Amino acid sequence: MSKGIISKDEDYSQWFNDLVIKADLAEYAPVRGCMIIKPYGYSIWEKMQAALDKMFKDTGHSNAYFPLFIPKSFFSKEASHVDGFAKECAVVTHYRLKNDGEGNIIVDEDAKLEEELIVRPTSETIIWHTYKGWIQSYRDLPLLINQWANVVRWEMRTRLFLRTTEFLWQEGHTAHATAQEAVAETEQMLEVYADFVENWMGVPVVKGRKTANERFAGALDTYCIEALMQDGKALQAGTSHFLGQNFAKAFDVKFTTKEGTLEHVWATSWGVSTRLMGALIMTHSDDAGLVLPPKLAPIQVVAVPIYKHDEELENIRTYIKGLSAELRAKGISIKFDDRDTQRPGFKFAEYELKGVPLRIAIGSRDMQNGTVELARRDTRTKETVTQDGLANHIEQLLEDIQTNIYQKAFKFREENTTEVDTYDEFKRLLDEKPGFLSAHWDGTPETEQRIKDETKATIRCIPLNNKQEEGKCILTGNPSTQRVLFARAY
Amino acid sequence: MSKGIISKDEDYSQWFNDLVIKADLAEYAPVRGCMIIKPYGYSIWEKMQAALDKMFKDTGHSNAYFPLFIPKSFFSKEASHVDGFAKECAVVTHYRLKNDGEGNIIVDEDAKLEEELIVRPTSETIIWHTYKGWIQSYRDLPLLINQWANVVRWEMRTRLFLRTTEFLWQEGHTAHATAQEAVAETEQMLEVYADFVENWMGVPVVKGRKTANERFAGALDTYCIEALMQDGKALQAGTSHFLGQNFAKAFDVKFTTKEGTLEHVWATSWGVSTRLMGALIMTHSDDAGLVLPPKLAPIQVVAVPIYKHDEELENIRTYIKGLSAELRAKGISIKFDDRDTQRPGFKFAEYELKGVPLRIAIGSRDMQNGTVELARRDTRTKETVTQDGLANHIEQLLEDIQTNIYQKAFKFREENTTEVDTYDEFKRLLDEKPGFLSAHWDGTPETEQRIKDETKATIRCIPLNNKQEEGKCILTGNPSTQRVLFARAY
Repeated sequence: MSKGIISKDEDYSQWFNDLVIKADLAEYAPVRGCMIIKPYGYSIWEKMQAALDKMFKDTGHSNAYFPLFIPKSFFSKEASHVDGFAKECAVVTHYRLKNDGEGNIIVDEDAKLEEELIVRPTSETIIWHTYKGWIQSYRDLPLLINQWANVVRWEMRTRLFLRTTEFLWQEGHTAHATAQEAVAETEQMLEVYADFVENWMGVPVVKGRKTANERFAGALDTYCIEALMQDGKALQAGTSHFLGQNFAKAFDVKFTTKEGTLEHVWATSWGVSTRLMGALIMTHSDDAGLVLPPKLAPIQVVAVPIYKHDEELENIRTYIKGLSAELRAKGISIKFDDRDTQRPGFKFAEYELKGVPLRIAIGSRDMQNGTVELARRDTRTKETVTQDGLANHIEQLLEDIQTNIYQKAFKFREENTTEVDTYDEFKRLLDEKPGFLSAHWDGTPETEQRIKDETKATIRCIPLNNKQEEGKCILTGNPSTQRVLFARAY
Repeated sequence: MSKGIISKDEDYSQWFNDLVIKADLAEYAPVRGCMIIKPYGYSIWEKMQAALDKMFKDTGHSNAYFPLFIPKSFFSKEASHVDGFAKECAVVTHYRLKNDGEGNIIVDEDAKLEEELIVRPTSETIIWHTYKGWIQSYRDLPLLINQWANVVRWEMRTRLFLRTTEFLWQEGHTAHATAQEAVAETEQMLEVYADFVENWMGVPVVKGRKTANERFAGALDTYCIEALMQDGKALQAGTSHFLGQNFAKAFDVKFTTKEGTLEHVWATSWGVSTRLMGALIMTHSDDAGLVLPPKLAPIQVVAVPIYKHDEELENIRTYIKGLSAELRAKGISIKFDDRDTQRPGFKFAEYELKGVPLRIAIGSRDMQNGTVELARRDTRTKETVTQDGLANHIEQLLEDIQTNIYQKAFKFREENTTEVDTYDEFKRLLDEKPGFLSAHWDGTPETEQRIKDETKATIRCIPLNNKQEEGKCILTGNPSTQRVLFARAY
């Protein structure tokens, strides 16, 4: 099959887009900036959701559902929050269409809303309005809630999965009796995200904090995980916010302490989105197509029969049936592709494109010899192995693949993380060898902004447990006590 | 605890509302007609989703995701569809807010959309627009896709779960090569729904077809399942539509047949929603609170310790720990409520309210005697049983409860389904003994409409495999060949 994917070395951005389309992950919708997540792409997202949802529940969170619409007045209650989101929100103004009498369907001006509704770009305001009714006493705390939902941000420049007008995500919103507990929750959820992204997606991340400039609108502190894509650009993979008492104050949410005093509640929020699909694709894939980590692959193993006569196929089918039962007992999914409309070579290319971690090719000679041919997607290597103990071998291989793609990505990140001490070197590397640049910064928003304006590089994060060292800001030469991580980013 | 729920005999409608609120299932949002699904309610919905999703996948369907917004022009392409939904849709007209300079956040008139976007009330139009790109040949068929999503219909009179402006649902949208296959799919999904509603929710349903008046806007045939609530009103619990070629023609979706001809595709769509939560609550619950079927109960068994001294509690805890492990191995969820802030009686009332199917009470005397007290929520009966083989006994009891609540609801429906032969009797029963009324109808939309106008009763369905018998229409006396099912409905 002709894959129709440009080489990633030639045009990384186009390669990503081609891959998303050709591998049947998603496509643009006829609505500006929105996407359609196709069944194959959605099945990966479902696996992500299931793993994350379990992690949230294991850490004591429950799911709930809040409205899609937020009254405009709510939105305005937390000042920096509205500043952050007002410029990019979809506004519902009417609740009816009508026929204009000439066969045209038009908006019915008699059905204008008294107060406009905002399609949620995030749900802090409506949730904190609700929490006011749910929280009276310290006994009601902590309140640990998550929501799986769609949100809308009217982005001007959109890209499939990475930045779309509507996207799917989860948003956790928790309430606590003390600042300390809220900070602990913020940090715990960052760890949950890092665990998921590294151990399920195979994507190494740097855990850190955002600078004031890059914080979530309404947060006192934003923690993040940052990943490095193969083109040397960074991607923010998840954020966890310590919101202090900002929303509790804006929505008047107080609780009676054990001691009988009345205090505002402390808050966190945290989220990851379908953007993770973009990170997954961009971290591991190659010019032949997707490379999926076994833990998230909708099909983990595919078996392709190679035969001329129907009786050969039946022998192979019988064998694969037995193997499938063994694999399923181990929780491994296998697909037997016995389509007679496509040749083996076409199927090989198709499963490579789709990122299936392991491919079994099996023909009559294999059946005689008691062997199969195994091809790994990650290394694109093949081996002929005996059928004895094959299920165990496959189980081991899938674990190896999961580990290997992580290590490969980790090595790439290490090789593309550079300590830089001068602004010239900083600018040169951004163009010649983009990646994470670890550099001293004087800690001011002005310097950060100037570097961004001049180089398009932003401070991705101040890594957690950062080494303290004396140094001079690459731009101003002013004293600095630690390096921070810069990069151009998605 | 004071439950604050009115008796259902006194005011059924208020009883339902009280129950939804007091059992922590949902509450009204500050957005007109929208609801907030609280964690306990959402955990029931999650169980429904998981069971349905598995049934959809077992019948060959995949999930995907389509945009929230539908361009107005799409909406207008299928004439009866737009007629059906235009009067109740939320319209997005702008994509930005701004500060008016005096501190007010207002809609930015410079950010007016060229074409208004409709918040999906259902997704046929955007999905069929997309299918045009996905379907070229008979090899692309059948296309079997489902979407879990939120939809918005601007209802004037709303009720928690039963009719809300925004609700959660799934919508299946399939494409087929022949009318016959599409009809078979429509019928298959009706069976899936009936299976789920009866065997998971414990709610008996009548399977049937809608009359032309009651069909989905754009369908050639609408199949439905109808349930009877405890107040004698019917509730449509799910629908499955044969859409013929209406949407394929509106969106020009054609395929090349095996024979090389070009034909329009045949379509179905089918959906159930959070309305099922309303059916679940209203079918089984009583004045003491919810009654949940074990298969959907977030907590299937609760154990409440009765003790004075901490060491007694520790003995009980040790015992329950062992029991829990046994139950979990059977896939049964158990909660041990060892809160020391509430008395056992308060806890009993709380779990009754929450509909937990089985309650274990266990005190020191039980520990000495090797017994526990078991209380069934459905029958409100108690028994003292030995600890020997308790896990097996509980497993059996949960199955009994699942069966019993279905049978109780089935008996209620049988007792409240009446054959009626005169219009006077029909009207009298609607007021005195509401329920399903099986009556002859002359088959005309005019008669159906007049009966609806005069009595508020509608034809819920023409049951599948309906007995054919000669009769006379209760309103017009015109000849009829079968009885249809009337009721007042939610």
